[in-house]
Amino acid sequence: MKRIMISRLEESIGEKIFIQGWVHRVRILKNISFVIVRDRSGMVQCVVDKDIDLNNLTNESVVEITGVAKEGKNSLNNFEVIVKEINVINKVEEILPIEVNKNSLDISLETLLNNRVLSLRNEKNNAIFKVQHILLQGFREFLSKEDFTEIFSPKIVAEGAEGGTSVFKLNYFGKEAYLSQSPQFYKQMMIAAGYERVFEIGNFFRAEEHDTRRHLNQFTSMDIELAFIEDENSIMDIEENLLKYMFNKLINEGEGYIKLLNIDVPQINIIPRVEFKEALKILKENYGKSINDIDLDSEGEELISKYAKERFNSDFIFITNYYREKRPMYTMPKGKDGTKSFDLIFRGMEITSGGQRINDYSMLIESFKAKGLNPEDFKSYIDIFKYGVPPHGGFAIGLERFLALLLGFGNVRETTLFPRDKNRLVP
Amino acid sequence: MKRIMISRLEESIGEKIFIQGWVHRVRILKNISFVIVRDRSGMVQCVVDKDIDLNNLTNESVVEITGVAKEGKNSLNNFEVIVKEINVINKVEEILPIEVNKNSLDISLETLLNNRVLSLRNEKNNAIFKVQHILLQGFREFLSKEDFTEIFSPKIVAEGAEGGTSVFKLNYFGKEAYLSQSPQFYKQMMIAAGYERVFEIGNFFRAEEHDTRRHLNQFTSMDIELAFIEDENSIMDIEENLLKYMFNKLINEGEGYIKLLNIDVPQINIIPRVEFKEALKILKENYGKSINDIDLDSEGEELISKYAKERFNSDFIFITNYYREKRPMYTMPKGKDGTKSFDLIFRGMEITSGGQRINDYSMLIESFKAKGLNPEDFKSYIDIFKYGVPPHGGFAIGLERFLALLLGFGNVRETTLFPRDKNRLVP
Repeated sequence: MKRIMISRLEESIGEKIFIQGWVHRVRILKNISFVIVRDRSGMVQCVVDKDIDLNNLTNESVVEITGVAKEGKNSLNNFEVIVKEINVINKVEEILPIEVNKNSLDISLETLLNNRVLSLRNEKNNAIFKVQHILLQGFREFLSKEDFTEIFSPKIVAEGAEGGTSVFKLNYFGKEAYLSQSPQFYKQMMIAAGYERVFEIGNFFRAEEHDTRRHLNQFTSMDIELAFIEDENSIMDIEENLLKYMFNKLINEGEGYIKLLNIDVPQINIIPRVEFKEALKILKENYGKSINDIDLDSEGEELISKYAKERFNSDFIFITNYYREKRPMYTMPKGKDGTKSFDLIFRGMEITSGGQRINDYSMLIESFKAKGLNPEDFKSYIDIFKYGVPPHGGFAIGLERFLALLLGFGNVRETTLFPRDKNRLVP
Repeated sequence: MKRIMISRLEESIGEKIFIQGWVHRVRILKNISFVIVRDRSGMVQCVVDKDIDLNNLTNESVVEITGVAKEGKNSLNNFEVIVKEINVINKVEEILPIEVNKNSLDISLETLLNNRVLSLRNEKNNAIFKVQHILLQGFREFLSKEDFTEIFSPKIVAEGAEGGTSVFKLNYFGKEAYLSQSPQFYKQMMIAAGYERVFEIGNFFRAEEHDTRRHLNQFTSMDIELAFIEDENSIMDIEENLLKYMFNKLINEGEGYIKLLNIDVPQINIIPRVEFKEALKILKENYGKSINDIDLDSEGEELISKYAKERFNSDFIFITNYYREKRPMYTMPKGKDGTKSFDLIFRGMEITSGGQRINDYSMLIESFKAKGLNPEDFKSYIDIFKYGVPPHGGFAIGLERFLALLLGFGNVRETTLFPRDKNRLVP
């Protein structure tokens, strides 16, 4: 018999049906018993006559059931299944280390991640990565429509570091190599190769020994780069429209997940754009906060977000024109000491760094030197700029962090299937 | 003025237009000159009056042009641009190492890859990765419609080797770690986590020192896994429908690329499924070829493909039921010494390995032991099977190889943006 998904059972009221899934919960009464069965689409109450022996049926066993779908209001649905036959097709061998059938798992993050596969069976944890799926498809759909080309860049590279963060080293057939931190150089090379607009969603690596709630040693970067821009505003325009598209898709396709996870989907009208110097003034005037640095600290990010929400009713704010000192060597300068750069702050945390890049060969060489870098060490990247490269720029969104902020989680590990950090290499 | 893409110029005949792109070719005559300009959408002939000085205009400079679009038949289009003003916005600093404006680049693969960014400016080389883009989106579209969830698995792993192929080692904060060869264990774990159907497109790594036309040290794997299958045939059914969908999308959206690259898009009706033992017989009877091994050699793959083409008019053929000895330890046995496994051969080369997996805990332990592996070394994977895992299986398609065979290239490096092999770590 053909399997029917639990979410479609309502269409088969009165008919013979066949379902497959996991035993979510068993309740054995004197004359009748109830088995809640769960598949990838939902859960259903199955009513079992006392003639069928359920004494060996444990939670999380995999079962298949033939029966009849029937109207009947219960806490899950307006229908239920009257069981004719129930077969265990894969049994549970050991007592479960965590109770997955709770509404919300009441366990530490440590325990949750140590038992990742089981904790993902919990409906709410499971839904996190269904939301991720929708956002990922939305990202690529929007960019494909906008004529971007998807690329896969090398993850093992010879010319590693942008400087600053540390890298994982690798012996590559006797040569020293690195795990890539970002597709930055390669996406710019694809601009130079004539694609004009490219994106990549891929895993990248940072060897920093940080162990914070906002960092991972392997992360998923959603990168884009586009050419023939006016200036950094063209790039922010694209990001604004991209985010709108992704949230609309989530609203259209993820209604159930939005309810289940109580997601507050941001409404984007226009994302305010504020220069870094202006942001410092705002922080000082509105919150009495002084920053004597060339970047916002985490409190600064939170306060400027608060300001964006109060003043513009926006969950997002672009901070632009950072000091040259603060930005990478490939960033296009602006004025005396500024750059055509921006960060995007979302609900108190930076999720994007972006900007226009230098596309002039001589200017690029000078910029590398000014940062104390030897252009010879980046030859295969820099040489490209000898051969005609249009004005261009781009940005990256850190997927795990973006998702954590959207869902209101305090730690990026909650929105990572199998996080990698200093202490976590398994599972 | 707003930029118009070259492919849309026909809609602006008689109007003032503004285009941006690269100088593909310059031809200076006595009274008039011609500049072919190229953007991501195509090429156009621009007619320049002798009053405008073009003497310093070199091929591959980046230019912007204002002018008027006009009807006028030429080798490229039924229209051309009468130039009013031409500005170089990024100039070429050095003589180009390769001539990118040729119809087909007449250079060695070595030179092509050493000059990857410039060789990709050649129309035909460029189109390869536009075709790839369409196929990638098709893959995800089909699977999203079929209710698959996209995942990102760890690329740095502790339990590395499936055995056989060698791995890149890594010092991970004092622990020994490996670069992942495949998402195999993790996609199975996502089945166990209740997603039932998952896919990943990601980069994976093999440290083998091979230097063949069909292998790379970093490759892009298109992986899927699905649960509640009948047997290995359910998996082949999905792959068949997936490939149909991808090729249809290519036909609908890639007409220009199909022409340019002269792509012979396979027509799939039903892909023949032949058991390994039967394949040996076919090779013997039809081609007098004897194989005394448990796998086809490359000549065997070519001949069985030839047979599929001649006998079934199919560019594809599934070989099924390989000997247990030949397949990984997680493969579901079939009969005395067979497995519920398959390979897919496409135009003479294997592009997919797949099959049903063992989902019974005890059977899995025994299978690991029978292969001489210590189950303790794979604990975080094997333990999952204690807690209820449905019947499942899946497969992977190697993207670069699939694309090479589709386009008729002899070497997977031609369909890889920046290949990584023993000798190639740059660019």
